Amino acid sequence: MRENAKEPERHARRMAAKQKVMQQRIERAQKEQGVLLVLTGPGKGKSSSGFGMVARALGHGMKVGVVQFIKGKFSTGEEAFFRDQPGVDYHVMGQGYTWDTQNREQDEESARAAWEVVKNMLADDSYKLILLDELNIALRHEYLDLDEVLDDLQARPEMQHVVVTGRYAPKQLIELADTVTEMKVVKHAFKDQGIKAQAGVEL
Amino acid sequence: MRENAKEPERHARRMAAKQKVMQQRIERAQKEQGVLLVLTGPGKGKSSSGFGMVARALGHGMKVGVVQFIKGKFSTGEEAFFRDQPGVDYHVMGQGYTWDTQNREQDEESARAAWEVVKNMLADDSYKLILLDELNIALRHEYLDLDEVLDDLQARPEMQHVVVTGRYAPKQLIELADTVTEMKVVKHAFKDQGIKAQAGVEL
Repeated sequence: MRENAKEPERHARRMAAKQKVMQQRIERAQKEQGVLLVLTGPGKGKSSSGFGMVARALGHGMKVGVVQFIKGKFSTGEEAFFRDQPGVDYHVMGQGYTWDTQNREQDEESARAAWEVVKNMLADDSYKLILLDELNIALRHEYLDLDEVLDDLQARPEMQHVVVTGRYAPKQLIELADTVTEMKVVKHAFKDQGIKAQAGVEL
Repeated sequence: MRENAKEPERHARRMAAKQKVMQQRIERAQKEQGVLLVLTGPGKGKSSSGFGMVARALGHGMKVGVVQFIKGKFSTGEEAFFRDQPGVDYHVMGQGYTWDTQNREQDEESARAAWEVVKNMLADDSYKLILLDELNIALRHEYLDLDEVLDDLQARPEMQHVVVTGRYAPKQLIELADTVTEMKVVKHAFKDQGIKAQAGVEL
């Protein structure tokens, strides 16, 4: 419902009411702690949202860890941009998309090696935010042990934020998470409309 | 449904089939053009996704324009991080959230001034990607004329990407867009669980 542009007083009253609700909410929510955030679902924007949070954390002067569990054969813009930013520790697992390797053993080995990198970050409170990009896909394929992953996430430093992306987030991870967003496809140019995947927005 | 870790051959076959589908899709989708992408819905991650796409585009060496239509009173991490990145032209509209100003006329004026900045970007094909952060909120409050906005978006250079974020994307914008993601709240720490909004992930 759009508001009537002709009623500035009603508008001011509504805005004042909203402001009050926001203030109350902020006052009530005084529990300071690291957040476990999961971005899942089939819609576009999960990884880019995770990388946006990396940028935001860097803007606050935080040290950030990034571990990508799936990487395309294409050079990705995120990697080119973030790998050498000061304050970023950037790791990429293995050898391209799982449907490119076609070798389960190799994928499992790469995933386990990547999780060792994550474990070290999760044990180090100098990392203020850790992005585990496409971890859900590695869990989906059972390249990693879900219980071990959940235990390590729970045992992390109290103030550390972790962002997990990827379709098919396991139910137990959603239960453990503080904030979960599911991204729904309303329309997809690449899939629906025969538009080529575009560098910059897609790759 | 999780696959059985004990069946490496079936796994390799499935991955090969997926690879084939991906290749066919990429071959079919050869239409090179700028994409209009809308990130909407109540879930967390719309703006951060837009900023992730900014980072990705910068990683490809593209020039990027950012116009924020709503800005909190808090300094935001995105602004601190991106404002001085080479290749970024960063503008922030007006004076804080609309529920802080409580002055409709001032908000309309700020929105119109911000749209003039956008118009110049939309007329300049050196901008390869433009992020219009929280534009949907300005449209929702009718601070801008929707038809004018849609006309300007349609008249932009063929290869220019535009990303629009914010709840309540108008139906006509969704119709015009190439790709639309709706972000659904599954859980929200700040709202549901009394956890304070956290610098880095929330602010």
